[in-house]
Amino acid sequence: MPEITISMAEGRTDEQKAGMMRDITQALVKNLGVDADAVVIQINEAPLRHKMKGGKTFVERAAAAKK
Amino acid sequence: MPEITISMAEGRTDEQKAGMMRDITQALVKNLGVDADAVVIQINEAPLRHKMKGGKTFVERAAAAKK
Amino acid sequence: MPEITISMAEGRTDEQKAGMMRDITQALVKNLGVDADAVVIQINEAPLRHKMKGGKTFVERAAAAKK
Amino acid sequence: MPEITISMAEGRTDEQKAGMMRDITQALVKNLGVDADAVVIQINEAPLRHKMKGGKTFVERAAAAKK
Amino acid sequence: MPEITISMAEGRTDEQKAGMMRDITQALVKNLGVDADAVVIQINEAPLRHKMKGGKTFVERAAAAKK
Amino acid sequence: MPEITISMAEGRTDEQKAGMMRDITQALVKNLGVDADAVVIQINEAPLRHKMKGGKTFVERAAAAKK
Repeated sequence: MPEITISMAEGRTDEQKAGMMRDITQALVKNLGVDADAVVIQINEAPLRHKMKGGKTFVERAAAAKK
Repeated sequence: MPEITISMAEGRTDEQKAGMMRDITQALVKNLGVDADAVVIQINEAPLRHKMKGGKTFVERAAAAKK
Repeated sequence: MPEITISMAEGRTDEQKAGMMRDITQALVKNLGVDADAVVIQINEAPLRHKMKGGKTFVERAAAAKK
Repeated sequence: MPEITISMAEGRTDEQKAGMMRDITQALVKNLGVDADAVVIQINEAPLRHKMKGGKTFVERAAAAKK
Repeated sequence: MPEITISMAEGRTDEQKAGMMRDITQALVKNLGVDADAVVIQINEAPLRHKMKGGKTFVERAAAAKK
Repeated sequence: MPEITISMAEGRTDEQKAGMMRDITQALVKNLGVDADAVVIQINEAPLRHKMKGGKTFVERAAAAKK
């Protein structure tokens, strides 16, 4: 019955996100022996301006990466 | 001072969500003896594509339920 | 399928906490029309020194309340 | 490596939110001795109708405050 | 940079939990193309009396399963 | 009314953690203009074996750092 929360910045495709959640589901089935039906996953996606790492928002980090 | 976080997929009406939060507030007042003012509740609502159960996104689950 | 997380300081009895979780379950059943089985609730309980309000840890708040 | 999650209602400016995250980053660097790069912060922002305090949604609280 | 939080009841071995976290790390590396070093995972483990599903605490569910 | 959750591994002193929470409180008061009393912070502290970064538990990372 583990519940998984993923905190991430926007910018990934729906395919990437669905694939990630499917593989996480399998990681729990394999390691904990639970039914897939018991695994619930939610992505809490933040706009780039609502996430910071190293003192820079992801807006600033994206701008710096483009230079 | 408990803080309540509700992780749920989109699709409920504002009336359902407000009613749910009011009743949760009362559940804390009744059982913990706190003032209603001490109870803070936030819904983190995810689009259907950002939530998975049983290895299926809620987009896939909604499509399967319609068949 | 909502998942509920309750962040609270230690100090309540098991009866209080179980009663609170049962009433929250009913709040979701009543307002959202979900099965009780779909409702998962977890309490993340913190020791008093790991929680702060108004710039005071709950250790300090408990000491102030005793005076 | 602490991860910080901020649950708040919408309504602050981007400047307020970025300033808050920068100062929180510094609070961790100063008190824990970690590198700024190790500090990750995400704001989970809720619309006013998805947040409740004292049994009133933030929509109701905003309306009451205007009177 | 996704941060993963796993909410689960106590009762799994350290090997199960470490294996689960390793496989989740790989799920993110594979699907998002991030470095493993960018993936941070934390388990918030609750005692059985602090978790409820279907209106029963995990203490009650464990007792029922034994019968 | 922002609620702050800090996910971190065990190992810091109570003084470090209280200082961090006090400075985070001030960061919100300064940037958002809220009363300190409106700021609630909780640390969800995990044992080293319940946290992973870069595919290694913090138990493994601590062992590697000692070498």
